[in-house]
Amino acid sequence: MTAPTTAIIGAGISGLTTGKMLCDYAVPYTCFETSDRVGGNWAFGNPNGHSSAYRSLHIDTSKHQLSFKDFPMPESYPDFPHHTQIKDYLDAYADAFGLREHIEFRNGVRHARRLPGAGWELDLEDGSTRHFEFLVVANGHHWDPRLPDFPGEFTGEVIHSHHYIDPSTPLEFAGKRILVVGIGNSAADIAVELSSKALRTEVTLSTRSSAWIVPKYIAGRPADKYYRTVPYVPLSWQRKLAQLGQPLLSGRPERYGLPEPNHKFFEAHPTQSVELPLRLGSGDITPKPNIARLDGQTVHFTDGTSGEFDVIIYATGYNITFPFFDPEFISAPGNHISLYKRIFKPGIGDLAFAGFAQATPTLFPFVECQARLIAAYAIGRYALPPADEMERVIASDQQKFTGHMLDRPRHTQQLDYFVYEHDIRTRELPAGLARATR
Amino acid sequence: MTAPTTAIIGAGISGLTTGKMLCDYAVPYTCFETSDRVGGNWAFGNPNGHSSAYRSLHIDTSKHQLSFKDFPMPESYPDFPHHTQIKDYLDAYADAFGLREHIEFRNGVRHARRLPGAGWELDLEDGSTRHFEFLVVANGHHWDPRLPDFPGEFTGEVIHSHHYIDPSTPLEFAGKRILVVGIGNSAADIAVELSSKALRTEVTLSTRSSAWIVPKYIAGRPADKYYRTVPYVPLSWQRKLAQLGQPLLSGRPERYGLPEPNHKFFEAHPTQSVELPLRLGSGDITPKPNIARLDGQTVHFTDGTSGEFDVIIYATGYNITFPFFDPEFISAPGNHISLYKRIFKPGIGDLAFAGFAQATPTLFPFVECQARLIAAYAIGRYALPPADEMERVIASDQQKFTGHMLDRPRHTQQLDYFVYEHDIRTRELPAGLARATR
Repeated sequence: MTAPTTAIIGAGISGLTTGKMLCDYAVPYTCFETSDRVGGNWAFGNPNGHSSAYRSLHIDTSKHQLSFKDFPMPESYPDFPHHTQIKDYLDAYADAFGLREHIEFRNGVRHARRLPGAGWELDLEDGSTRHFEFLVVANGHHWDPRLPDFPGEFTGEVIHSHHYIDPSTPLEFAGKRILVVGIGNSAADIAVELSSKALRTEVTLSTRSSAWIVPKYIAGRPADKYYRTVPYVPLSWQRKLAQLGQPLLSGRPERYGLPEPNHKFFEAHPTQSVELPLRLGSGDITPKPNIARLDGQTVHFTDGTSGEFDVIIYATGYNITFPFFDPEFISAPGNHISLYKRIFKPGIGDLAFAGFAQATPTLFPFVECQARLIAAYAIGRYALPPADEMERVIASDQQKFTGHMLDRPRHTQQLDYFVYEHDIRTRELPAGLARATR
Repeated sequence: MTAPTTAIIGAGISGLTTGKMLCDYAVPYTCFETSDRVGGNWAFGNPNGHSSAYRSLHIDTSKHQLSFKDFPMPESYPDFPHHTQIKDYLDAYADAFGLREHIEFRNGVRHARRLPGAGWELDLEDGSTRHFEFLVVANGHHWDPRLPDFPGEFTGEVIHSHHYIDPSTPLEFAGKRILVVGIGNSAADIAVELSSKALRTEVTLSTRSSAWIVPKYIAGRPADKYYRTVPYVPLSWQRKLAQLGQPLLSGRPERYGLPEPNHKFFEAHPTQSVELPLRLGSGDITPKPNIARLDGQTVHFTDGTSGEFDVIIYATGYNITFPFFDPEFISAPGNHISLYKRIFKPGIGDLAFAGFAQATPTLFPFVECQARLIAAYAIGRYALPPADEMERVIASDQQKFTGHMLDRPRHTQQLDYFVYEHDIRTRELPAGLARATR
C-alpha cells in the first residue's frame, strides 16, 4: 500500500506530534498553519489568536507526566514549567525531528471539501487550492471562547479568559470590582492573580457547578505523580477509592464558601489550585453561586444576593469549532462529536482528528498515542472495524470515560489517559493490525 | 494594698490588652503612644514607623486561634483576616472597653529612668516629666529591622522587609532582579508576591537555615486548628510525634531546591506558605543558600554560584529594642533578655514586660494571659518568688521552650502558647497568690 498524501491542519501539540509520527512512518505530508510559528495554544501571544495563555500561566501537569515519551523535558525544567518553557520545548521538538520543513506557515486552511468518493480539496490562505488523500484535523479545542447566556444585560466591561493576559492587559484591572465566572483552572488562576491586595481590586468568583479543589503538590511531590489509574480495575471502583481519600487531600468546597458541588469528588475534572482556598479563606475572593440575571452593572446571583461590578471575566471554557468545514458536514454542537477512539468519524475513512480530548492527567503523551494510531492507519498497518461496530464502541467508551460526569460541554471530552493508552496499545493496535492483514 | 500608679509604653496589642486588664482590676494607668492611633504593628502605615505590615498581609494565625478570649472576632471574618480587619478588631476592642481615654497619643516615652529604690521618672515627647510607681513595657519587638552583615558591599538598592509595602512601594520592583534574604513568613510572602510573572521580575530567595514549610490549610481547615500541644506530655515527645507526621504535611525543603534545613521539623518555627513551594517548583523563584559575599551588584552564595541583582530585600527579622532605656540598664543583645515568665526582670520589682515572645500558634491570647498576671501582680494578688528562684526558673523555661532550637536571634523568644497558658493558669497564678497572701 502506498502511503496517502496527507494534510495536517494546525502546528500545535497535536499537529506536531502527528507530523513527527508521519515522518517516522515515511508518510508524505504537509502541515498548514495560519500562524508564523509552531506551538498553537502554547505560543503566548500567538498572532493567529489561538493562544489562551496568560502571562503567568504554568502548566498544571508536572513535567514528569507531561513529557513526550520520545522526547523528555530538560532536567533543568521546574516541576511545573512556565508557558515559555513549554513553547521552547515544542520548538526543540520541531527542530529535533525536522518538522518545520513540512509546515507551511501563514497558510492556514480556509475551507476543506471532501471530494465525491474520497480525497480532499483544500482552499488555502495563499489563494491556492490543493488536493490530498488523507486529512488530519489538529486545530485544537481551546481557542474559541464559549460565553454563557444570562438574562438581562451587563453594561460594564466583559472579556473572556481567552483574552486575559495580566493585571493590566487587555484592561487595567487595578482598583476594579471584578467578577470571575467559572471554577476551572483558568478561573482559579485569574481570580487569584487579580485578588492580590496590591491591586486594590474586589474579586468575586461565581460558579454554577462548584468544584473540588486539589493541590498541585502533595507531601512535597507533584500531585499528579500519585495519579495512576490501573487499566485492569473498573474505573468506577477507582473513583470510589479516590472519594474515600479525598478528605485527606482537600476540604469540602463549602468550607471556603463555594456552593456545594453538584457532583462527587473525581466525578468531574477537579480544579488544581493551592492558592484559591487560601484566598477565599482570607476574604480576598468572595464566593458566589451562579448568576441569575444581569442588570446594568448589577449582577444578581441565584442565592438572592447581588453585587456591583466593573468587569466580568468569563472563564467558561471553549467551543470545539472547525471553521474550515461546512457546519452541516461536521460540527460539534454542545461540544459533542462522536469519534471512534476520539479519532475517526464513522463513514469518513480518509479523515482523522488529533488531540480532541481532555486527557487526565496528561495531554502530550495522549496525542503521541493518538498519532501512533493515525500513522499506522495511514500506512495500512491498522484498519478500522465496520461502521456499526465503531458506533457501538463510541457509545461504550463515552460511558466509560464520562458516564459518571455531568453532561456539560466542558466534560464531553474527559478521558483517563492511562486507560486510553492501555486500550490503544494492548487492544486496539493489535486488533486493527489483524483487521488490516486479514 | 493600694494599686500603683502605672504607665504602659505602647498601645499595640500588648499595651491594649494590659490596659484592659488593668481597667478590670481598677489599677490607675496611663498608656503613652508615639502614634496617633492604636494597633502598633497592625496599624498599616502607622505614622510612628512601627508597623511592618505590607499591603497584602494576612495574619498567619486563623481567627479561631487568634481571638482574645474575652472578645471573639466577628463571625463575618474570614479564616485568615487581612491586616485591615485586625486593625478594625483592635479599634473595636479599644472602644468596647473604653481604653482610649487612658491613652495619650502622640506622646511617647523618650526616656525612662528608674528612681533610686523604686519608681519611675518618664521624659515624654510633649517635654514633660512624669512619675509612676509601676512601668509596663509593651513597645513590641517587630519594628526595629535586623540587618545581617556580609563581607563586601552591594551597590544596588537595599531595603528591609519592614519597609516593603507592595510591588511598587517603596521601590518600583517590576522588571527588577530581586534577591530576598530570609525564609520566615515575610520572606515567603514577599518573594511570592514579587515573583508574579505579571511583574516580569526575576526573584531569588537566599536562606541560611532553610525552613520546613507548612500549609495554612490542612484538609480544608486552618492548619492551626490541628495545633494543640498537651501540657501534660513532655514537649520533646510531642515534637517527635510531629516529626513522624511531617511527610504527610509537606515535603522536604530540598525537594523545592532549598538548602537542607539545619534543624528537624518542629525544632524551629516553620514557615507558613502554600504558595512558596509552588513558586519554587514552577521556577518562578530560584532558591539559593546563604550569601558568602557582596561585590557591586554581584552576590556570591556559599555554594559557589553567584548572581546579579538590582535589589536586595532583607527579610531577616527584628531586634528587640528599648530606645527609652539606657542600654547599660536594660537591653537585649542578640535578642536575649532574661525575664521570669517572659514578664519580670529579677531585681526590678516595679517593671513588667508584655508581649515579648514568639508564641505558637497564637499571640493574642498569649498577651491576654500575660496581662492577667501583670494585673494580679499590680494589685498584690500575685507575688514573685525570690530572685534566685526566678533565675533558676528562667533557665529551665528557656530550656523547655527553645532548648531544641537553633541559637538564633529569631528563636530566642519561641514559646508554646498552650504549655505557657496552662503553666500560668494552673501553677504560676495560684503559687503567686499563695506567696502574696502568706
